[in-house]
Amino acid sequence: MPVNYSTPSAEALHAVHGVRLGTAEAGIRKLDRKDLLLIELAPGSTVAGVFTQNRFCAAPVTVCKANLELARQDNGIRALLINTGIANAGTGAPGLAAAQATCAAVAQRLGCRPDQVLPFSTGVIMEPLPVERIEAALPVCVANLDERRWHEAAHAIMTTDTVAKAASRRVEIDGVPVTITGIAKGAGMIRPNMATMLGFVATDAPVDQPVLERLVREVADRSFNCVTVDGDTSTNDSFVLLATGRAGGAPIADGDSAACAVLREALVAVAAELARAIVRDGEGATKFISIVVEGGRDVAECRAVGYAIAHSPLVKTAFFASDPNLGRILAAIGNAGIGDLDVTKVRLWLDEVLVAADGGRHPDYREEDGVRVMKQDEITVRVDLARGAAQATVWTCDFSYDYVKINADYRS
Amino acid sequence: MPVNYSTPSAEALHAVHGVRLGTAEAGIRKLDRKDLLLIELAPGSTVAGVFTQNRFCAAPVTVCKANLELARQDNGIRALLINTGIANAGTGAPGLAAAQATCAAVAQRLGCRPDQVLPFSTGVIMEPLPVERIEAALPVCVANLDERRWHEAAHAIMTTDTVAKAASRRVEIDGVPVTITGIAKGAGMIRPNMATMLGFVATDAPVDQPVLERLVREVADRSFNCVTVDGDTSTNDSFVLLATGRAGGAPIADGDSAACAVLREALVAVAAELARAIVRDGEGATKFISIVVEGGRDVAECRAVGYAIAHSPLVKTAFFASDPNLGRILAAIGNAGIGDLDVTKVRLWLDEVLVAADGGRHPDYREEDGVRVMKQDEITVRVDLARGAAQATVWTCDFSYDYVKINADYRS
Repeated sequence: MPVNYSTPSAEALHAVHGVRLGTAEAGIRKLDRKDLLLIELAPGSTVAGVFTQNRFCAAPVTVCKANLELARQDNGIRALLINTGIANAGTGAPGLAAAQATCAAVAQRLGCRPDQVLPFSTGVIMEPLPVERIEAALPVCVANLDERRWHEAAHAIMTTDTVAKAASRRVEIDGVPVTITGIAKGAGMIRPNMATMLGFVATDAPVDQPVLERLVREVADRSFNCVTVDGDTSTNDSFVLLATGRAGGAPIADGDSAACAVLREALVAVAAELARAIVRDGEGATKFISIVVEGGRDVAECRAVGYAIAHSPLVKTAFFASDPNLGRILAAIGNAGIGDLDVTKVRLWLDEVLVAADGGRHPDYREEDGVRVMKQDEITVRVDLARGAAQATVWTCDFSYDYVKINADYRS
Repeated sequence: MPVNYSTPSAEALHAVHGVRLGTAEAGIRKLDRKDLLLIELAPGSTVAGVFTQNRFCAAPVTVCKANLELARQDNGIRALLINTGIANAGTGAPGLAAAQATCAAVAQRLGCRPDQVLPFSTGVIMEPLPVERIEAALPVCVANLDERRWHEAAHAIMTTDTVAKAASRRVEIDGVPVTITGIAKGAGMIRPNMATMLGFVATDAPVDQPVLERLVREVADRSFNCVTVDGDTSTNDSFVLLATGRAGGAPIADGDSAACAVLREALVAVAAELARAIVRDGEGATKFISIVVEGGRDVAECRAVGYAIAHSPLVKTAFFASDPNLGRILAAIGNAGIGDLDVTKVRLWLDEVLVAADGGRHPDYREEDGVRVMKQDEITVRVDLARGAAQATVWTCDFSYDYVKINADYRS
């Protein structure tokens, strides 16, 4: 059960002009479930993505990067094909050929070139992608392409997710109404490094390619790059922005313009909602934890402290137990790799309760206050490093029996 | 239940001439258990230690470092005082005063200076050390000081350990029989960075101070620095070598001598046995995993890959489930931070079974072979990075329901 999250209704997910979605049951790994999603883009759309830093990156990630590079100089991307069930990672040269074969199949159906298609896969690693099943199901995807299928699309990309993740916003840019709608999937193997497992956010705003490439990095850094479930960076992490331009208005060609700022904030709102939904649906999660680290010399060290806390199994199990075993948080801060951290200046809060200062427990701290906060299902851990003005936020969840159960049982 | 480990009998733990041990029930956190250990050293003994890199290092660690520095220039260390129950970490200035007060109490009883005493604590973080209870129990420790109490000593330093850890060896150095006996504790918050939670290894060999200081680092790197349970580096990690010289023979003054090599290997044998015992008794452990990483450019990158595998919750839960979900190991290798790793050259074995090569599953690999190895309670994961001649080994355990249970229940 996710922590305070449910999928928005189909009606709440606004269509994005120029983006059509179609799903099918390809039987890739399990029968009787939608496991294939085709996203078709209107001609002239711009696309930008960020991808996993894992050296064992999946074959579709390699193909995506190559095709995006080609698209910058040429006709642009016309479709995305996403399958769940098999990750097509750790599959060597045959895996690359399989990913390219699925692009070719889409290109043939839609009348574009194979390199105008981006492939995405999620699921089990080191198993071969059943290309023929995907090819056989493609006609169904094409036949039901529609701008109003975001809700269905969000369901078609789930793996161990217990809820589909989607978000939608409308904003006005220079008097022109613009829509932003996105979907994401992920629940385990979540410690995005540039992007989450799979996230797709589309807008009908007109955005020039260089601006979109800057935006995808900025938005990722304020959304998917802030979350962690278990510290395991997936082989398939991908986050993609799609801009069709069908809303009309002047193209956004200046990344520092007021128009771009409005769009950026709306994109961040959608992407951060999706990113938090992934944590709320984290495998076995019973609590949603925001870790806010302030007073750092730079963002990097704030993030290092945030992740040291968020990745500590001892901290995560203490949250699960609602046990204010706060020394474990101090120990995690001390392990973040800041060699010259003056621990006597560090302060630690649980929500509004000041827990630690001067290198130890604050004299006013009372265990009952800690217990009260720890029993909540949404908790903010705040750390002041007292050595600068930088800050960063990391969102994570607790670590329960069910995390072990889910991951010990997965595959079987 | 530890994985294939039981405490050696009291008779198997040889006395080390010049080292006397005494224990007591101080009631530091729980009643009716031995929780205080005093180790007394003969005059002229040399002592060297390595300590946690955690910035929130415990007060006793700070005092140990200072007193060892003084001892190098002066009279030498005469006693070690170890308590379990309270870690005296995250306790600020009062914690330092408490650690020093216990040293003063020991000094008064034994007739030495307070800075000739090294204090060690293990247990709950951020709670004050009950100095008065320790002072009250000290006379009992002093009264039963004896060279034949290693077995009892190993029990007195346990926290969440399910078995006491001890090891003993005898070797001959230049015709002189020498004894090495050690004890250690630790089961969770185990990812030593220079040392384990607490490890004490004593010998009656005569070793000059500079050689002992080199040996303690070399031995730690081949024993306690090779293990991890949960990736959480403790605030109290300490590993100490004690050398009384009472065996006689020529002092070991040359770290490159043949005599020192014999001693080094014997020390490593004892320390590695203790380090592996900590993993075998890892919280919730059901399997003992050796991760051997070969073919690296340097030891550091081999260790990085070993720890990336050993710290992945997904890998650890797969071991618990005996599930050869080997893609998780590949993903962990890809996450180890080697930016220019050529994954098409990496090879992966489970025991003797070649699992992955050429960036994917090896064509001869059969799932039933993987299952057979994964069902064992001792498994070796071997990785060949194929980019150099360096190698490193990391020992770890799996991640079970019981890890969550133990750490969610601890304190309560």
